[in-house]
Amino acid sequence: MKITALAGGVGGAKLANGLSKLLAVEDLCVIVNTGDDFEYLGLYICPDLDTVTYNLAGLNDPASGWGLKGDTHNVLEAIEKFGHTKWFRLGDQDFATHIERTRLLKSGYTLSQVTQKISSNLGVKHTILPMSDQPVQTKIITDKHEILPFQEYFVRYQTKPVVREILFNGIDKCSLPDIAAAKLESSDIIIICPSNPYVSIDPILAVPGVSSILLTKTVIAVSPLIGGKTIKGPAAKIMGEFGMVPNSLNIAKHYQSIVSGIVIDNRDLLEQEAISHCGIIPLVTDIYMHDVESQVNLARQVLDFGSSLLKGKQQ
Amino acid sequence: MKITALAGGVGGAKLANGLSKLLAVEDLCVIVNTGDDFEYLGLYICPDLDTVTYNLAGLNDPASGWGLKGDTHNVLEAIEKFGHTKWFRLGDQDFATHIERTRLLKSGYTLSQVTQKISSNLGVKHTILPMSDQPVQTKIITDKHEILPFQEYFVRYQTKPVVREILFNGIDKCSLPDIAAAKLESSDIIIICPSNPYVSIDPILAVPGVSSILLTKTVIAVSPLIGGKTIKGPAAKIMGEFGMVPNSLNIAKHYQSIVSGIVIDNRDLLEQEAISHCGIIPLVTDIYMHDVESQVNLARQVLDFGSSLLKGKQQ
Repeated sequence: MKITALAGGVGGAKLANGLSKLLAVEDLCVIVNTGDDFEYLGLYICPDLDTVTYNLAGLNDPASGWGLKGDTHNVLEAIEKFGHTKWFRLGDQDFATHIERTRLLKSGYTLSQVTQKISSNLGVKHTILPMSDQPVQTKIITDKHEILPFQEYFVRYQTKPVVREILFNGIDKCSLPDIAAAKLESSDIIIICPSNPYVSIDPILAVPGVSSILLTKTVIAVSPLIGGKTIKGPAAKIMGEFGMVPNSLNIAKHYQSIVSGIVIDNRDLLEQEAISHCGIIPLVTDIYMHDVESQVNLARQVLDFGSSLLKGKQQ
Repeated sequence: MKITALAGGVGGAKLANGLSKLLAVEDLCVIVNTGDDFEYLGLYICPDLDTVTYNLAGLNDPASGWGLKGDTHNVLEAIEKFGHTKWFRLGDQDFATHIERTRLLKSGYTLSQVTQKISSNLGVKHTILPMSDQPVQTKIITDKHEILPFQEYFVRYQTKPVVREILFNGIDKCSLPDIAAAKLESSDIIIICPSNPYVSIDPILAVPGVSSILLTKTVIAVSPLIGGKTIKGPAAKIMGEFGMVPNSLNIAKHYQSIVSGIVIDNRDLLEQEAISHCGIIPLVTDIYMHDVESQVNLARQVLDFGSSLLKGKQQ
């Protein structure tokens, strides 16, 4: 069974890691959001790609959810002397990744090629790919009509501004890398990981060509909400700001046109029926991933669920 | 009295530091060799400029002679995973300098502007300038007819190859930055620091326009040799490979067309007479700089010597 997972950062990386423990190298491809990518200190930084890569390499910092385990911050301390604010807290080993990526991109490699080189150098065997080789910039329009680059909203302002609208600048002109398109086309099941639908998954879905492939496939989502709350990140807060109740039913509705099933948490059991009424099959289980074992457990259930939906479709 | 010092790395940086303790901010400019500059990991590195800057900032590592005191090497350890050999041993704080310089150059600042920003951010008040804003590449032609970029010869091969010739690629098309030219023109005395004549000072002297200014000035050199040996670096070895006896007399002869005086070590007292016969006035003293105090002591004597030569000329 060939699987493609669509992922953003922390939550997506956890499920992707669980999937990587169950699937052969050739059977899993993770396509990752790059709308959060940005240039910082002249270096090209891809937060979601790195989070997925570090998780699959077993190098991630489980405490913060991003960056590298046991990393130091000596470059960043020194860079303060040059008048830079340290709002984006990069570690020294992490700097090595960004220096290498920037060097390779400058040498003419595509982001797909660079991502594969870096992940393979860090010991990752499964395929991790960016949603596009062309830059896309996610911008947050606030209630004060400010236009914030995503990382400023997310890291510098700690998601405090009220979101009115989210733009994916450059999305019309970007395209899925050929290798990612081939992986997606040949997938039996596509899994939308428990990442933020608005800022992590929607950019991937908005890449020209992606949704038309998805419409021909068995797609299942894993809700990023448990009891109306996220483990990390502003998905629930944004839903409120968009005038929605933050719950898994509304996550299901968000993905209604493309998913045939959604995995929700036991604590959201009562939403099961309403989800079914939308024509989406719910699977209710424990979706909280607090360690690698629970990542694998959830991944196994997601794969079984997808498999059963696929069989149902084929009959 | 306005002073310009011409300097390479370690030895030059020590005397420049001594001069900076004695001279007002507006009275000292250090013009530094950039023939050793190179790109490494996509970052633009200026070893001599950094050594001078770190010395004047009091941040230099006195043990190695270059790099920063107490620096760690975490980025470099991590970058090994990407298949890079670590032959150029950059520290983490040092990486911050190179990241900032690369960023500023990419933003369109000249190397002169970047050097002044960085040195001022690190607390240096005196003016440090590159010999040129255009790149010059010092190349070492070995006895095996290899053409080695300077840092490969110097760091990777630890100056072991036998030098046949030294080229300064790009020197014809480069020019002294305007501000450096103005400083040089308005100087009363120009001091050639105890740096390697062949690879550190000659590139500066070869920048178009420099030697014609020097011919109108009182120029004094400080020998980089003590008892026929260098404290650091391959100057003596190169002299041997060029068929010369490595001594201060031959250093004096090397600078014969531009200097009126040379400062040599007590241990080279016997060369005094031969130097005088070349029409160069020698000053014999202790030129070994083992700490900041001895840097200041030597700087004071050099200034007094220069001052007396200048007065002699004016009479």
